[in-house]
Amino acid sequence: SNIRNLPMEKLASTMMFPCKYSQSGCAAQLLYTDKPDHEDSCEYKPYSCPCPGSSCKWYGPLEQVMNHLMLQHKSITTLQGEDIVFLATDINLSGAVDWVMIQSCYSHHFMLVLEKQEKFHGHQQFFAVVQLIGSHKQADSFIYRLELNGHRRRLTWEATPRSIHEGVQSAINTSDCLVFDTHIAQLFADNGNLGINVTISPV
Amino acid sequence: SNIRNLPMEKLASTMMFPCKYSQSGCAAQLLYTDKPDHEDSCEYKPYSCPCPGSSCKWYGPLEQVMNHLMLQHKSITTLQGEDIVFLATDINLSGAVDWVMIQSCYSHHFMLVLEKQEKFHGHQQFFAVVQLIGSHKQADSFIYRLELNGHRRRLTWEATPRSIHEGVQSAINTSDCLVFDTHIAQLFADNGNLGINVTISPV
Ligand SMILES: [Zn+2]
Ligand SMILES: [Zn+2]
Ligand SMILES: [Zn+2]
Ligand SMILES: [Zn+2]
Repeated sequence: SNIRNLPMEKLASTMMFPCKYSQSGCAAQLLYTDKPDHEDSCEYKPYSCPCPGSSCKWYGPLEQVMNHLMLQHKSITTLQGEDIVFLATDINLSGAVDWVMIQSCYSHHFMLVLEKQEKFHGHQQFFAVVQLIGSHKQADSFIYRLELNGHRRRLTWEATPRSIHEGVQSAINTSDCLVFDTHIAQLFADNGNLGINVTISPV
Repeated sequence: SNIRNLPMEKLASTMMFPCKYSQSGCAAQLLYTDKPDHEDSCEYKPYSCPCPGSSCKWYGPLEQVMNHLMLQHKSITTLQGEDIVFLATDINLSGAVDWVMIQSCYSHHFMLVLEKQEKFHGHQQFFAVVQLIGSHKQADSFIYRLELNGHRRRLTWEATPRSIHEGVQSAINTSDCLVFDTHIAQLFADNGNLGINVTISPV
């Protein structure tokens, strides 16, 4: 029916509802209108597998994410240190490709992602971004820097890491990451391999 | 005729020819096969007006370029100093747009160019680049840095300035400059105005 029940609407607009993750520990009570936003970023929402472009359907609590990666995604390399080189090999491979590695520093694990895709016909682009294997709040206390170094040229992007809770796709969709095209990639690549300097710092 | 005159070809391939700018002072003597490349970048070639996207047909010697800009392109702002802010207003204007200003430092004049264009359908991009009002050789002794600063984000591009002798279009065509899309522009713009920090340094 299109007839609006104003008293009911009024009542609903003032009632408080529990978060749908209350069973996992969330104590939040929310107005109906605030529920979707809260639940989308609720810290008790289970974490999905952070591997980009993977068809992995795993999800679980934050504490088990690294364990899952070690067991199910054994090919992912881990490097120790706050200042490392993320080497993407064969960047000229055609089609949508993802390069992933893990950087461990400051008692945290960060997942580095380089994604190649064609958002616009005939225009392949690379998107590089860092996500913390941790909560949004934890991610806020770090900053990452991605740097391409070439012959008398340097391209640098600095930003707050994403949390794997939100993932990297929204950052890639809105270009809120290091974006460069195949021309730029060629300027900085060596024999089809691209080294990205990654530095993580506490804020 | 398709009949090749081998003795003539052999002779021509060893003969030296003067550069076509010999009247302007170039003393180079060149093999026929080397003439086009040399003349394209010959330092005695007249300079064209460096204003991007302008229909100005002026050309002349390097010493007269600044004079030409002052007289014929009065709307171009000049700022003094090696570290300035290039403010591009109304970046949301549709269509191909150019923003231009001149930065004077180290006894040289640099032209800063921000160009908005749609290389790929539905995908507007910004290209920012610095060119020295001087020769290629003079440009080689400088480096420029363009920096966008936003909320916990920074995008930086460092490179050797172009010379106005070669111009900026080849840099824009090959993305050999600071490239960003409208999403990124929004992240760094304030009320439709984008400030780009420009720093020039001697190498
Ligand atoms: Zn919740
Ligand atoms: Zn997985
Ligand atoms: Zn010459
Ligand atoms: Zn002109």
